[in-house]
Amino acid sequence: MTSREFHCGLEAVLAILGGKWKPLIVYHLTENPRRTGQLRRLVTGVTEKMLIQHLKELTDDGVVRRIDFQTVPPHVEYELTEFGRSLAMVLAPMCEWGTRHSSDVAMIVQNRKGASEAA
Amino acid sequence: MTSREFHCGLEAVLAILGGKWKPLIVYHLTENPRRTGQLRRLVTGVTEKMLIQHLKELTDDGVVRRIDFQTVPPHVEYELTEFGRSLAMVLAPMCEWGTRHSSDVAMIVQNRKGASEAA
Repeated sequence: MTSREFHCGLEAVLAILGGKWKPLIVYHLTENPRRTGQLRRLVTGVTEKMLIQHLKELTDDGVVRRIDFQTVPPHVEYELTEFGRSLAMVLAPMCEWGTRHSSDVAMIVQNRKGASEAA
Repeated sequence: MTSREFHCGLEAVLAILGGKWKPLIVYHLTENPRRTGQLRRLVTGVTEKMLIQHLKELTDDGVVRRIDFQTVPPHVEYELTEFGRSLAMVLAPMCEWGTRHSSDVAMIVQNRKGASEAA
């Protein structure tokens, strides 16, 4: 038992996926296990350091499993646990929304740049 | 037209809701328009400064609308736009997941604290 309370379910999700790149890391593990280098290429903008830190946290939290093939040279992959897989499923409606509104969002991001350049 | 590209829909969502408290702010505007003080109480842990900054960004991005009732003393409320409302709908499955797994997540957060105290 614990005293930690969540006032709504969303707070619980954010407690797990709150890190800047975590939703994208989980998303890119949905289809296949991945090596760090593959994730680095898939998760646009993440640094090596942040990726490794987030993978460690997701592993400690039981969202991701680290598989070490015990080979030389080392071969390590990450895959979603059952728990991680159930979490990944709630990202799907977000992906669909984002795909449907990607040109709106691109415009919004463009307007932000314009506003900050004008300031 | 813009050169900003999203590799998946999720990136577009994170471009809008990437700020630490933004998903919770949008969530708490789903049912009713709210004053800043109400949001401050509902969004657990947010500071006044961060709340105001996030509300300004969400307003600039067209997710939230600021309604000034032009009264003395001032009365300002925030509500979701149509665009914001469509975005809020994709948060619903997350809320459900979080509610279903809230005791798992509470345990995970508790374990993290234990690990950092042991370190």
